[in-house]
Amino acid sequence: MDRRSFLTKSAALGVGASAAALATPALSQGRQQWRMVTTWPKNFPGMGVGAQRLADRITAATDGKLSIQLYSAGELVPGLQALDAVIDGNAEMSHGASYYWQNKSQALNFFTGVPYGMTSRELTAWVHHMGGQQIWDEVYDQFGVQGFLSGDTGTQAGGWFRNELTGVKDIQGLRFRTPGLGGQVWQKLGATVTNLAAGEIFQAFQSGTLDAAEFVGPLNDLALGFYQVTKNYYFPSFIEPGLATELVVDKTKFTALDKGTQEIIRSICQAEYDMVAADFAANDPRALATLVNEHGVQVKRFPEEIMEAGAVAAKEILTNLLDSGDTLTKKTAESFIAAFNVVRQKTEGTDSLYLQAREKYFHL
Amino acid sequence: MDRRSFLTKSAALGVGASAAALATPALSQGRQQWRMVTTWPKNFPGMGVGAQRLADRITAATDGKLSIQLYSAGELVPGLQALDAVIDGNAEMSHGASYYWQNKSQALNFFTGVPYGMTSRELTAWVHHMGGQQIWDEVYDQFGVQGFLSGDTGTQAGGWFRNELTGVKDIQGLRFRTPGLGGQVWQKLGATVTNLAAGEIFQAFQSGTLDAAEFVGPLNDLALGFYQVTKNYYFPSFIEPGLATELVVDKTKFTALDKGTQEIIRSICQAEYDMVAADFAANDPRALATLVNEHGVQVKRFPEEIMEAGAVAAKEILTNLLDSGDTLTKKTAESFIAAFNVVRQKTEGTDSLYLQAREKYFHL
Repeated sequence: MDRRSFLTKSAALGVGASAAALATPALSQGRQQWRMVTTWPKNFPGMGVGAQRLADRITAATDGKLSIQLYSAGELVPGLQALDAVIDGNAEMSHGASYYWQNKSQALNFFTGVPYGMTSRELTAWVHHMGGQQIWDEVYDQFGVQGFLSGDTGTQAGGWFRNELTGVKDIQGLRFRTPGLGGQVWQKLGATVTNLAAGEIFQAFQSGTLDAAEFVGPLNDLALGFYQVTKNYYFPSFIEPGLATELVVDKTKFTALDKGTQEIIRSICQAEYDMVAADFAANDPRALATLVNEHGVQVKRFPEEIMEAGAVAAKEILTNLLDSGDTLTKKTAESFIAAFNVVRQKTEGTDSLYLQAREKYFHL
Repeated sequence: MDRRSFLTKSAALGVGASAAALATPALSQGRQQWRMVTTWPKNFPGMGVGAQRLADRITAATDGKLSIQLYSAGELVPGLQALDAVIDGNAEMSHGASYYWQNKSQALNFFTGVPYGMTSRELTAWVHHMGGQQIWDEVYDQFGVQGFLSGDTGTQAGGWFRNELTGVKDIQGLRFRTPGLGGQVWQKLGATVTNLAAGEIFQAFQSGTLDAAEFVGPLNDLALGFYQVTKNYYFPSFIEPGLATELVVDKTKFTALDKGTQEIIRSICQAEYDMVAADFAANDPRALATLVNEHGVQVKRFPEEIMEAGAVAAKEILTNLLDSGDTLTKKTAESFIAAFNVVRQKTEGTDSLYLQAREKYFHL
């Protein structure tokens, strides 16, 4: 997802919203209604569904004492104004991805995921056990908000390519829809990167304006119909090995809640981190089976040359963040890299070895 | 961990417990105190620490309305009587691992983990999105209890071996401490499997009664001192690719709670599933670094021949469960295998490819 997709969707949905939606949250007999704005379109698989479930779980766990009303992108504010809505007091909560706000601080990239960076499990290890949350709190304290991890896509798909890829030379001049730091990686590899809205990708791809496009993974990509343009579906993404979502809460309002309700919000965000990742783990392969079996899609692997060149480019980009003039961005990058170099030892030295053996030897 | 370790510990701690501990939970002004018995020794890294944190989070989230008092293995009942304590009404909750109760139903193995089976992420996908929880509920309904996933170790270590392993021939007659279905796998490979208590392993290993031992992974193994006997530490475990813990609640008492408190318990269990897995992800590699750097431990990989033979043995064992005379065990095995064949496609076809590339090309 990217900025323009939200803005377009928001416009289509008629931003400005109703007076009722903008009214002060209802307060009666110790009961409050809070507004959660999101960066996701309504019922967006995985992330948007997770945001709704998170809202419902908080409402249920507090027995309605804190009732959360969800507004999809554009219903109350445009998707990419979700954080500003909380900062400005027009909503109490937002649900999105931290890296959407990298114009406020480059440090925020790390709490969503970076190219060739942490998997979903590694990220939660850093955030909950290796000081990540504390640094994130420092970053968000600048804006008067509190962030919590609230979901993760797991490792994404690499993208749809009209023509087969044999090596880095095939990327030169390729018109590729891929946003963010990942887009910068592909740009370094020679692609001409564009940032079309979700709803605009298909047409651009079909008309020949785009040569390639990546969005999320099978669960989300199936719905967008890219298989009608090309059958070449490349794996894995090395620019989005995991995309974590966040719940952001107005910090003053959060700390004014009783401790029990604070713990409920904190716990349900963490529960949803597991629930959303599990959703993608269960439903990405089901969607991929549909793509392959019903639409003739061919699953392909990026050539090793591209995987290697992508790593070189990603390293340059992360090193730049490490050298950032911003103290907190530098501090975040240093903490992330130190933790990364610890957690990867188990992931690569144990988990990965197990998976390779299972794939080779164990079939039921 | 295994039965004898708990029983031994329990005896040492003087089971029978105090009259106070056995008293009816306190009830005043709508406040209740519930007893959570656990299968873990006090402050047992990862799992035991997680059980305590889970209890504290429920107490905090309910503002003390439901206050959870934790009893470590042996404090109220012996560890391996934890589930029976709930069934018999001597505790409201137990925290342990579902496969400890396989004498009640072989189906329960699947909700902890089976040899060459699901990783922690795959398990939560099955349980929360592919019907696993519903089947688990059916299994536990027979005993009047409700189970929730509450933690996971991630992929474990393969074990400590006095002599180097070159192939399956080196397993013949090997006296190996390894419990459960995993132990059955090693037995099929030729080992003489024994089930010593945690506190007894070191002495048996050092005295020469054992040739090999496996427990959990670096975080737990470091404390047991195996590095004093041998430096050969083999990876990865193919018999415990993930060990999930459970919270079990008396079902009648659970359903009598208000819906909000039910949701709090459900959510905090799921939050702790993430928190415990993240703990192992962060701290297993730190413990392994200590083992290698301070104690001269050598990290080794099982020979491919052993990984392959292990897969054959594991398949035989799972196929036996599929052919179980017990209807619910058969139903559980069928559901598990169907889900396994779906979820592994993403884990092996996307996650694993990413990790292999990262290991090869990306170093910070």
